[in-house]
Amino acid sequence: MEHLNFLEEKILSDGTIKQGNILKIDNFLNHQIDIDIMRQIAYELKRRFRDVEVNKVLTIEASGIAIATMLGNLYDVPIVFAKKGETANSTDDKYVSQAYSFTHKQMNSVFVSKPYLHPTDRVLIVDDFLADGQAVHALIDLVHQAGGEVAGIGIAVEKGQQKGGRQLREEGYRLESIAIIDEMDWETQSIKFRR
Amino acid sequence: MEHLNFLEEKILSDGTIKQGNILKIDNFLNHQIDIDIMRQIAYELKRRFRDVEVNKVLTIEASGIAIATMLGNLYDVPIVFAKKGETANSTDDKYVSQAYSFTHKQMNSVFVSKPYLHPTDRVLIVDDFLADGQAVHALIDLVHQAGGEVAGIGIAVEKGQQKGGRQLREEGYRLESIAIIDEMDWETQSIKFRR
Repeated sequence: MEHLNFLEEKILSDGTIKQGNILKIDNFLNHQIDIDIMRQIAYELKRRFRDVEVNKVLTIEASGIAIATMLGNLYDVPIVFAKKGETANSTDDKYVSQAYSFTHKQMNSVFVSKPYLHPTDRVLIVDDFLADGQAVHALIDLVHQAGGEVAGIGIAVEKGQQKGGRQLREEGYRLESIAIIDEMDWETQSIKFRR
Repeated sequence: MEHLNFLEEKILSDGTIKQGNILKIDNFLNHQIDIDIMRQIAYELKRRFRDVEVNKVLTIEASGIAIATMLGNLYDVPIVFAKKGETANSTDDKYVSQAYSFTHKQMNSVFVSKPYLHPTDRVLIVDDFLADGQAVHALIDLVHQAGGEVAGIGIAVEKGQQKGGRQLREEGYRLESIAIIDEMDWETQSIKFRR
Protein backbone atom coordinates (compact mmCIF):
# COMPACT_ATOMS: atom_id res chain seq x y z
CA MET A 1 0.00 0.00 0.00
CA GLU A 2 1.42 3.31 -0.98
CA HIS A 3 2.14 5.98 1.59
CA LEU A 4 0.17 9.20 1.16
CA ASN A 5 1.16 12.51 2.70
CA PHE A 6 -1.32 14.70 4.65
CA LEU A 7 -2.41 16.69 1.60
CA GLU A 8 -2.85 13.68 -0.66
CA GLU A 9 -4.96 12.05 2.06
CA LYS A 10 -7.05 15.21 2.45
CA ILE A 11 -7.60 15.44 -1.32
CA LEU A 12 -8.78 11.82 -1.41
CA SER A 13 -11.06 12.20 1.62
CA ASP A 14 -12.54 15.67 0.99
CA GLY A 15 -12.00 16.46 -2.70
CA THR A 16 -14.41 15.81 -5.55
CA ILE A 17 -13.56 15.09 -9.17
CA LYS A 18 -15.92 16.80 -11.60
CA GLN A 19 -16.44 15.87 -15.22
CA GLY A 20 -13.81 17.45 -17.46
CA ASN A 21 -10.81 16.65 -15.26
CA ILE A 22 -11.69 19.27 -12.64
CA LEU A 23 -10.61 18.75 -9.04
CA LYS A 24 -12.81 20.58 -6.56
CA ILE A 25 -11.07 21.15 -3.24
CA ASP A 26 -12.48 24.55 -2.40
CA ASN A 27 -13.91 23.08 0.80
CA PHE A 28 -10.45 23.16 2.39
CA LEU A 29 -7.97 25.03 0.17
CA ASN A 30 -9.27 28.02 -1.74
CA HIS A 31 -12.72 29.17 -0.67
CA GLN A 32 -13.16 27.64 2.72
CA ILE A 33 -9.74 27.13 4.27
CA ASP A 34 -8.96 24.33 6.69
CA ILE A 35 -6.45 26.10 8.91
CA ASP A 36 -4.81 22.88 10.07
CA ILE A 37 -4.13 21.81 6.48
CA MET A 38 -2.86 25.32 5.71
CA ARG A 39 -0.46 25.18 8.68
CA GLN A 40 0.83 21.79 7.51
CA ILE A 41 1.32 23.10 3.96
CA ALA A 42 3.39 25.99 5.30
CA TYR A 43 5.52 23.79 7.58
CA GLU A 44 6.07 21.24 4.83
CA LEU A 45 7.13 23.86 2.26
CA LYS A 46 9.51 25.46 4.77
CA ARG A 47 10.97 22.02 5.53
CA ARG A 48 11.51 21.26 1.85
CA PHE A 49 13.25 24.60 1.31
CA ARG A 50 15.30 24.32 4.52
CA ASP A 51 18.60 24.71 2.62
CA VAL A 52 17.39 27.87 0.85
CA GLU A 53 17.66 31.46 2.06
CA VAL A 54 14.39 33.37 1.73
CA ASN A 55 13.77 37.02 2.59
CA LYS A 56 10.39 37.52 0.90
CA VAL A 57 7.33 35.43 0.03
CA LEU A 58 5.53 36.32 -3.20
CA THR A 59 2.15 35.13 -4.42
CA ILE A 60 -0.72 36.33 -6.59
CA GLU A 61 -4.17 37.35 -5.39
CA ALA A 62 -6.45 35.88 -4.27
CA SER A 63 -6.20 32.28 -3.20
CA GLY A 64 -2.40 32.20 -2.83
CA ILE A 65 -2.56 34.77 -0.03
CA ALA A 66 -3.45 32.31 2.73
CA ILE A 67 -0.44 30.04 2.06
CA ALA A 68 1.82 33.07 1.64
CA THR A 69 0.63 34.54 4.96
CA MET A 70 1.31 31.31 6.86
CA LEU A 71 4.77 31.03 5.26
CA GLY A 72 5.62 34.68 5.89
CA ASN A 73 4.66 34.04 9.51
CA LEU A 74 6.97 31.01 9.73
CA TYR A 75 9.90 32.72 7.99
CA ASP A 76 9.17 36.08 9.67
CA VAL A 77 9.64 37.88 6.34
CA PRO A 78 7.42 40.27 4.37
CA ILE A 79 4.77 38.90 2.05
CA VAL A 80 3.92 40.51 -1.27
CA PHE A 81 0.89 39.61 -3.30
CA ALA A 82 0.88 40.58 -6.97
CA LYS A 83 -2.35 42.15 -8.14
CA LYS A 84 -4.31 41.36 -11.26
CA GLY A 85 -5.79 43.98 -13.51
CA GLU A 86 -6.74 44.87 -17.02
CA THR A 87 -3.88 44.56 -19.46
CA ALA A 88 -1.52 47.42 -18.71
CA ASN A 89 2.06 48.42 -19.34
CA SER A 90 4.86 48.86 -16.86
CA THR A 91 5.08 52.34 -15.40
CA ASP A 92 7.57 54.21 -13.29
CA ASP A 93 5.99 52.84 -10.17
CA LYS A 94 5.17 49.21 -10.98
CA TYR A 95 6.54 46.06 -12.57
CA VAL A 96 4.00 44.45 -14.88
CA SER A 97 3.84 41.03 -16.51
CA GLN A 98 1.10 39.18 -18.38
CA ALA A 99 -0.63 35.89 -17.64
CA TYR A 100 -3.40 34.14 -19.48
CA SER A 101 -6.32 33.38 -17.18
CA PHE A 102 -8.07 30.12 -18.06
CA THR A 103 -10.85 31.06 -15.65
CA HIS A 104 -11.58 34.35 -17.39
CA LYS A 105 -10.30 33.35 -20.84
CA GLN A 106 -8.27 36.53 -21.27
CA MET A 107 -4.80 37.95 -20.73
CA ASN A 108 -4.47 39.62 -17.36
CA SER A 109 -1.84 41.99 -16.13
CA VAL A 110 -0.02 40.91 -13.02
CA PHE A 111 1.78 43.68 -11.21
CA VAL A 112 3.77 44.61 -8.12
CA SER A 113 4.63 48.13 -7.00
CA LYS A 114 8.35 48.69 -7.52
CA PRO A 115 9.27 49.44 -3.89
CA TYR A 116 8.19 45.92 -2.86
CA LEU A 117 10.67 43.95 -4.98
CA HIS A 118 14.43 44.54 -4.79
CA PRO A 119 17.66 43.29 -6.38
CA THR A 120 18.64 41.89 -2.98
CA ASP A 121 15.48 39.80 -2.69
CA ARG A 122 15.62 36.01 -2.52
CA VAL A 123 12.00 35.26 -3.22
CA LEU A 124 9.98 32.17 -2.43
CA ILE A 125 7.05 32.12 -4.87
CA VAL A 126 4.01 30.22 -3.58
CA ASP A 127 0.56 29.39 -4.85
CA ASP A 128 -2.24 26.97 -4.10
CA PHE A 129 -2.48 25.42 -7.59
CA LEU A 130 -0.05 24.91 -10.46
CA ALA A 131 -1.50 23.93 -13.82
CA ASP A 132 -0.14 25.59 -16.96
CA GLY A 133 2.17 27.82 -14.95
CA GLN A 134 0.96 31.14 -16.35
CA ALA A 135 0.72 32.85 -12.98
CA VAL A 136 4.03 31.48 -11.69
CA HIS A 137 5.86 32.51 -14.86
CA ALA A 138 4.47 36.04 -14.49
CA LEU A 139 5.67 36.16 -10.87
CA ILE A 140 9.14 34.94 -11.89
CA ASP A 141 9.22 37.68 -14.53
CA LEU A 142 8.37 40.32 -11.91
CA VAL A 143 11.17 39.13 -9.59
CA HIS A 144 13.64 39.23 -12.48
CA GLN A 145 12.50 42.70 -13.61
CA ALA A 146 13.41 43.89 -10.11
CA GLY A 147 16.80 42.17 -10.36
CA GLY A 148 15.95 39.73 -7.58
CA GLU A 149 16.45 35.99 -7.38
CA VAL A 150 13.84 33.22 -7.30
CA ALA A 151 14.86 31.08 -4.32
CA GLY A 152 12.19 28.50 -5.04
CA ILE A 153 8.61 27.81 -6.00
CA GLY A 154 6.29 26.17 -3.48
CA ILE A 155 2.93 24.77 -4.57
CA ALA A 156 0.20 22.94 -2.69
CA VAL A 157 -1.40 21.02 -5.57
CA GLU A 158 0.23 20.51 -8.97
CA LYS A 159 -1.78 19.18 -11.88
CA GLY A 160 0.91 16.95 -13.27
CA GLN A 161 -0.79 16.41 -16.61
CA GLN A 162 -0.54 20.10 -17.46
CA LYS A 163 2.68 21.66 -18.63
CA GLY A 164 3.50 24.14 -15.84
CA GLY A 165 5.50 21.88 -13.56
CA ARG A 166 7.48 20.21 -16.35
CA GLN A 167 8.43 23.55 -17.91
CA LEU A 168 9.51 25.10 -14.61
CA ARG A 169 11.69 22.08 -13.77
CA GLU A 170 13.22 22.11 -17.28
CA GLU A 171 13.98 25.81 -16.82
CA GLY A 172 15.96 24.84 -13.71
CA TYR A 173 13.72 26.23 -11.00
CA ARG A 174 13.55 24.53 -7.65
CA LEU A 175 9.89 23.55 -7.62
CA GLU A 176 8.29 21.74 -4.68
CA SER A 177 4.67 20.62 -4.95
CA ILE A 178 3.19 18.83 -1.97
CA ALA A 179 0.69 16.84 -4.04
CA ILE A 180 1.17 16.13 -7.74
CA ILE A 181 -1.83 14.66 -9.50
CA ASP A 182 -0.86 12.51 -12.46
CA GLU A 183 -4.25 11.01 -13.22
CA MET A 184 -7.85 11.62 -12.18
CA ASP A 185 -10.83 9.52 -13.08
CA TRP A 186 -14.27 11.04 -12.75
CA GLU A 187 -16.25 7.83 -12.98
CA THR A 188 -14.36 6.00 -10.26
CA GLN A 189 -13.48 9.19 -8.31
CA SER A 190 -9.90 7.95 -8.17
CA ILE A 191 -6.66 9.92 -8.24
CA LYS A 192 -3.13 8.79 -9.00
CA PHE A 193 -0.45 10.86 -7.28
CA ARG A 194 3.13 11.08 -8.51
CA ARG A 195 5.58 9.22 -6.28
CA MET B 1 0.89 63.60 24.42
CA GLU B 2 -1.66 61.14 23.22
CA HIS B 3 -0.99 57.44 23.36
CA LEU B 4 -1.00 55.69 19.97
CA ASN B 5 -1.45 51.95 19.49
CA PHE B 6 0.89 49.87 17.30
CA LEU B 7 -1.20 50.31 14.16
CA GLU B 8 -1.71 54.05 14.56
CA GLU B 9 2.05 54.43 15.04
CA LYS B 10 2.74 52.33 11.95
CA ILE B 11 0.29 54.38 9.87
CA LEU B 12 2.00 57.60 10.96
CA SER B 13 5.51 56.29 10.36
CA ASP B 14 5.01 54.34 7.12
CA GLY B 15 1.77 55.61 5.56
CA THR B 16 1.39 58.37 2.99
CA ILE B 17 -1.56 60.69 2.52
CA LYS B 18 -2.31 61.36 -1.14
CA GLN B 19 -4.33 64.24 -2.48
CA GLY B 20 -8.07 63.51 -2.36
CA ASN B 21 -8.14 62.07 1.15
CA ILE B 22 -6.42 58.83 0.14
CA LEU B 23 -4.35 56.93 2.69
CA LYS B 24 -1.70 54.74 1.10
CA ILE B 25 -0.54 51.96 3.42
CA ASP B 26 -0.02 49.22 0.87
CA ASN B 27 3.61 49.00 1.95
CA PHE B 28 2.57 47.08 5.07
CA LEU B 29 -1.13 46.15 4.92
CA ASN B 30 -2.56 45.23 1.55
CA HIS B 31 0.06 44.71 -1.16
CA GLN B 32 3.24 44.17 0.76
CA ILE B 33 2.36 42.73 4.16
CA ASP B 34 4.43 43.37 7.27
CA ILE B 35 3.95 40.04 9.03
CA ASP B 36 4.69 41.47 12.47
CA ILE B 37 1.94 44.09 12.08
CA MET B 38 -0.39 41.40 10.74
CA ARG B 39 0.30 39.21 13.78
CA GLN B 40 -0.40 42.12 16.12
CA ILE B 41 -3.65 42.92 14.29
CA ALA B 42 -4.81 39.33 14.74
CA TYR B 43 -3.86 39.19 18.44
CA GLU B 44 -5.48 42.56 19.11
CA LEU B 45 -8.75 41.61 17.38
CA LYS B 46 -8.87 38.30 19.25
CA ARG B 47 -8.26 40.18 22.52
CA ARG B 48 -11.06 42.65 21.82
CA PHE B 49 -13.49 39.83 21.01
CA ARG B 50 -12.37 37.69 23.99
CA ASP B 51 -15.92 37.53 25.36
CA VAL B 52 -17.33 36.36 22.02
CA GLU B 53 -17.67 32.79 20.74
CA VAL B 54 -16.40 32.41 17.17
CA ASN B 55 -16.42 29.25 15.06
CA LYS B 56 -15.67 30.74 11.64
CA VAL B 57 -13.79 33.73 10.22
CA LEU B 58 -15.26 35.31 7.09
CA THR B 59 -13.66 37.88 4.79
CA ILE B 60 -13.78 38.94 1.15
CA GLU B 61 -11.04 38.48 -1.42
CA ALA B 62 -8.37 39.66 -1.80
CA SER B 63 -6.72 41.81 0.83
CA GLY B 64 -8.81 40.60 3.77
CA ILE B 65 -7.43 37.08 3.38
CA ALA B 66 -4.18 37.74 5.24
CA ILE B 67 -5.91 39.02 8.40
CA ALA B 68 -8.50 36.24 8.18
CA THR B 69 -5.76 33.61 7.87
CA MET B 70 -3.89 34.89 10.94
CA LEU B 71 -7.12 35.01 12.94
CA GLY B 72 -8.25 31.57 11.80
CA ASN B 73 -4.85 30.34 12.95
CA LEU B 74 -5.28 31.93 16.39
CA TYR B 75 -8.86 30.72 16.85
CA ASP B 76 -8.15 27.38 15.15
CA VAL B 77 -11.36 27.67 13.15
CA PRO B 78 -12.08 27.51 9.39
CA ILE B 79 -11.71 30.62 7.26
CA VAL B 80 -14.03 31.43 4.39
CA PHE B 81 -13.35 34.11 1.86
CA ALA B 82 -16.27 35.39 -0.18
CA LYS B 83 -15.54 35.72 -3.87
CA LYS B 84 -16.33 38.63 -6.15
CA GLY B 85 -17.77 38.24 -9.60
CA GLU B 86 -19.96 39.75 -12.20
CA THR B 87 -23.44 40.56 -10.99
CA ALA B 88 -25.20 37.22 -10.54
CA ASN B 89 -28.17 35.77 -8.75
CA SER B 90 -28.27 33.25 -5.96
CA THR B 91 -28.35 29.66 -7.12
CA ASP B 92 -28.91 26.34 -5.49
CA ASP B 93 -25.27 26.12 -4.59
CA LYS B 94 -24.32 29.63 -3.49
CA TYR B 95 -25.44 32.59 -1.40
CA VAL B 96 -25.06 35.86 -3.32
CA SER B 97 -25.17 39.48 -2.22
CA GLN B 98 -24.28 42.74 -3.95
CA ALA B 99 -21.73 45.41 -3.08
CA TYR B 100 -20.81 48.58 -4.88
CA SER B 101 -17.09 48.71 -5.64
CA PHE B 102 -15.72 52.25 -5.45
CA THR B 103 -12.49 50.99 -6.99
CA HIS B 104 -14.20 49.55 -10.05
CA LYS B 105 -17.25 51.89 -10.00
CA GLN B 106 -19.72 49.06 -10.46
CA MET B 107 -21.91 46.67 -8.51
CA ASN B 108 -20.17 43.41 -7.80
CA SER B 109 -21.61 40.14 -6.70
CA VAL B 110 -20.17 38.73 -3.51
CA PHE B 111 -20.79 35.05 -2.98
CA VAL B 112 -20.06 32.05 -0.81
CA SER B 113 -20.78 28.43 -1.65
CA LYS B 114 -23.65 27.23 0.52
CA PRO B 115 -21.82 24.38 2.27
CA TYR B 116 -19.40 26.87 3.84
CA LEU B 117 -21.93 28.88 5.87
CA HIS B 118 -24.32 27.24 8.35
CA PRO B 119 -27.15 28.17 10.72
CA THR B 120 -24.89 27.12 13.60
CA ASP B 121 -22.10 29.50 12.57
CA ARG B 122 -21.01 32.34 14.86
CA VAL B 123 -19.01 34.32 12.35
CA LEU B 124 -16.30 36.89 12.92
CA ILE B 125 -16.23 39.11 9.82
CA VAL B 126 -12.84 40.74 9.19
CA ASP B 127 -11.35 43.09 6.63
CA ASP B 128 -8.35 45.37 6.25
CA PHE B 129 -10.31 48.58 5.50
CA LEU B 130 -13.76 49.87 6.35
CA ALA B 131 -15.01 52.91 4.47
CA ASP B 132 -18.61 52.95 3.23
CA GLY B 133 -19.22 49.44 4.51
CA GLN B 134 -20.43 47.97 1.22
CA ALA B 135 -18.33 44.82 1.49
CA VAL B 136 -19.08 44.23 5.18
CA HIS B 137 -22.82 44.65 4.64
CA ALA B 138 -22.68 42.09 1.82
CA LEU B 139 -20.83 39.66 4.12
CA ILE B 140 -23.42 40.18 6.88
CA ASP B 141 -26.16 39.47 4.35
CA LEU B 142 -24.47 36.19 3.36
CA VAL B 143 -24.22 35.05 6.99
CA HIS B 144 -27.91 35.87 7.54
CA GLN B 145 -28.97 34.11 4.33
CA ALA B 146 -27.35 30.99 5.78
CA GLY B 147 -29.17 31.49 9.07
CA GLY B 148 -25.93 32.12 10.95
CA GLU B 149 -25.04 34.80 13.47
CA VAL B 150 -22.56 37.67 13.13
CA ALA B 151 -20.44 37.41 16.28
CA GLY B 152 -18.53 40.59 15.48
CA ILE B 153 -16.78 42.68 12.85
CA GLY B 154 -13.04 43.21 13.13
CA ILE B 155 -11.33 45.87 11.02
CA ALA B 156 -7.73 47.04 10.82
CA VAL B 157 -8.26 50.60 9.53
CA GLU B 158 -11.61 52.41 9.59
CA LYS B 159 -12.08 55.63 7.68
CA GLY B 160 -14.14 57.40 10.32
CA GLN B 161 -15.33 60.15 7.99
CA GLN B 162 -17.13 57.65 5.78
CA LYS B 163 -20.44 56.16 6.77
CA GLY B 164 -19.66 52.44 7.12
CA GLY B 165 -18.63 52.38 10.78
CA ARG B 166 -21.41 54.67 11.98
CA GLN B 167 -24.09 52.64 10.18
CA LEU B 168 -22.83 49.31 11.47
CA ARG B 169 -22.73 50.58 15.07
CA GLU B 170 -26.23 52.06 14.71
CA GLU B 171 -27.43 48.71 13.41
CA GLY B 172 -26.16 47.19 16.64
CA TYR B 173 -23.19 45.23 15.38
CA ARG B 174 -20.17 44.77 17.59
CA LEU B 175 -17.54 46.55 15.47
CA GLU B 176 -13.91 46.78 16.53
CA SER B 177 -11.52 48.85 14.40
CA ILE B 178 -7.92 49.01 15.56
CA ALA B 179 -7.28 52.43 14.00
CA ILE B 180 -10.07 54.89 13.21
CA ILE B 181 -9.04 57.87 11.12
CA ASP B 182 -11.19 60.93 11.79
CA GLU B 183 -9.17 63.48 9.84
CA MET B 184 -6.34 63.47 7.33
CA ASP B 185 -4.52 66.46 5.97
CA TRP B 186 -2.56 66.05 2.78
CA GLU B 187 -0.55 69.26 3.02
CA THR B 188 0.75 68.65 6.51
CA GLN B 189 0.69 64.82 6.21
CA SER B 190 -1.09 64.70 9.54
CA ILE B 191 -3.74 62.28 10.78
CA LYS B 192 -6.18 62.57 13.64
CA PHE B 193 -7.23 59.24 15.14
CA ARG B 194 -10.43 58.72 17.10
CA ARG B 195 -9.80 58.28 20.82
